[in-house]
Amino acid sequence: MRDFSQDHRALAINSATVKALNLQQLCDACVRAGITTIAPWRDQIQAVGISTAGKIIKDAGLGVTSLVRAGLFTAASEAGRKAAIDDNRRAVDEAAGIGAANLLLIAGGLPPGSKDIAGARQQVHDGLATLLPYAKSANMPLALKPLHPMTAADRGCVTTLGNAKDICDELGDGLGVAIDVYHVWWDPTLPQEIARAGKRILGFHVCDWLVPTTDLLTDRGMMGDGIIDIKSIRGMVEAAGYDAPVDVEIFSANNWWKRDADEVLRICIERFRSVV
Amino acid sequence: MRDFSQDHRALAINSATVKALNLQQLCDACVRAGITTIAPWRDQIQAVGISTAGKIIKDAGLGVTSLVRAGLFTAASEAGRKAAIDDNRRAVDEAAGIGAANLLLIAGGLPPGSKDIAGARQQVHDGLATLLPYAKSANMPLALKPLHPMTAADRGCVTTLGNAKDICDELGDGLGVAIDVYHVWWDPTLPQEIARAGKRILGFHVCDWLVPTTDLLTDRGMMGDGIIDIKSIRGMVEAAGYDAPVDVEIFSANNWWKRDADEVLRICIERFRSVV
Repeated sequence: MRDFSQDHRALAINSATVKALNLQQLCDACVRAGITTIAPWRDQIQAVGISTAGKIIKDAGLGVTSLVRAGLFTAASEAGRKAAIDDNRRAVDEAAGIGAANLLLIAGGLPPGSKDIAGARQQVHDGLATLLPYAKSANMPLALKPLHPMTAADRGCVTTLGNAKDICDELGDGLGVAIDVYHVWWDPTLPQEIARAGKRILGFHVCDWLVPTTDLLTDRGMMGDGIIDIKSIRGMVEAAGYDAPVDVEIFSANNWWKRDADEVLRICIERFRSVV
Repeated sequence: MRDFSQDHRALAINSATVKALNLQQLCDACVRAGITTIAPWRDQIQAVGISTAGKIIKDAGLGVTSLVRAGLFTAASEAGRKAAIDDNRRAVDEAAGIGAANLLLIAGGLPPGSKDIAGARQQVHDGLATLLPYAKSANMPLALKPLHPMTAADRGCVTTLGNAKDICDELGDGLGVAIDVYHVWWDPTLPQEIARAGKRILGFHVCDWLVPTTDLLTDRGMMGDGIIDIKSIRGMVEAAGYDAPVDVEIFSANNWWKRDADEVLRICIERFRSVV
C-alpha cells in the first residue's frame, strides 16, 4: 500500500469539491497548493471549449484522471436514449481533448414514470454497448461508477460494484469501474468485489459519510469527518492492482462549498496524508 | 400470487404508520376499518404492561405479525452489548405475551467512534447467537430485517437480504428475515436472494420510495406514491413460499403522520387492494 503520509502527489481534486471555481481558477488554485492532478466536470470544459480547456490544463502542467461525467443512459423514449448516446459521444471527444485518463460515467435512474429497475439496468447495458466502439476508437476508457442505493431512483440504478463489474464482464475491453468509498462502503460483499474487479478499477474516489447525513446528495464529508474506514478500502483497491491517483470529490452545500477554495484544498491535502 | 384486489384480510398495520395512537386507539381504529392484524411497537406495549396489552389486542380480536422492534446489538463496550441482550430478552417476553408471530429485529449501526462495519456485523452475529436459545425456549421466532444502506452507519449495518440470510444460515433454526420493499428494492441481486431466503422469510413489509426523498428516515411514501414495483416484489416473495400478512409501515413526518388516523387506514386499504 502506498505511503501518502509525506506526499500528496497521488491526490487529484474533483472540481465539484471547490465548485465555485471555473477551470482556470481551479488550475491556478491546484498549482498554488502543489496539487498535480484534477478531475474537472464537463460544464467547465464546455464553458471555454475543448481546445482552450486542454490548453489551460496543459499550461498549468496538470494531469487529468477523469472527465466528470457522462452516462445517464436511461430515458423513457428511444429518442431520449439516442440523445443520451449522442451526448456521451461528445463527452468522449471532450475527454480526449483534455487528455483525461478516462471518462467517468454514472448509470442514470429510473426513466420518468417507470418502476422497472431491471429494465433501467438493461438500458444502461445497451447504452454502454452502443457507446463503447466510439470510445475505443478514441482510445478513451469508460469508467462506470456504481452509486449508493439511495440514488437508485433518480441517478444511479447501478447500485453495487458487483453490478457494475457484471456489466463490464458482459461488454469486454474499454470499460471499467470507478470505486467511490462514499457509494460502496456499506456493502457486505465489498472485499470480494474489489478483488474481483481487479484491473477493471480505473478510478478511486474518496470523501466521507457523515452521521447524521441530512441530505441524500449534498451532505458529504471531508475525509476523516465521518465513519468510512478509507484506508482499509484503499488497501483493498491497491491490493487489487490500482496505482493511479485518488480523486477527492465532496458534495457539501452547507459546509465545504461555502469555504474559501485555498482553505478547502489545504485541508484536503492534510486529510489525504493523514486519513486516506 | 394472492389476489388482494377485493380483500384486505392479509393487511397488517404497523403502528408507526399511525403513530399518534396508543395501543387501545390503534386497535379500535383497526376494528373500525375492518383490519384484522397489527404490528405494534414496543413502547405501546410497555406503556400499559404486557398482560394489559395482550388483553387489549385479544379483546379486539386482532392478530399480531411482529412485535416491533428489538435487535440493535452493536455497542462500544461489552457492558453495552450485554445490556442489549438483556433488552432483547425482555422483547422476547413482550412478543410472547401479546401472541406475536415473531419478534422483529434490526441490526444496529456502527458503535460510537467505530469505523469497523465488519466488526459491527460480527457483533450482530454474536448477539443473535446469544439471544437465540432464549427465543427458541419461548417459541418466539426472530425476524431480522436488513435495512437500506443509507442507514448502515446509525441503525442497520446488515444492509442486504443476502447478508441477513448468511447470518441465518450460520445460526440455524429460530431465526429468519423480514423483507421490507423500501429497504431492498434497489438490490440487483434481489430476485435470487428472495428465492434463496425461501422459508426463512418471516415478514413482508411495504411502503414506497418517494422521488425526491428529502429525509433518510421519515420521508417514506404510501404504496403507489413512489417508484417501487411492489407487486413484482410480492410476487417473488410469495413464489418463495410466503403466505402470511403484509405489514404496512410508513415513516412520514411531513405527510401521513399529520393526517387523521382513520383516513390513513382507509387509504392504506385502498392502496393495499390496488398496488400491493
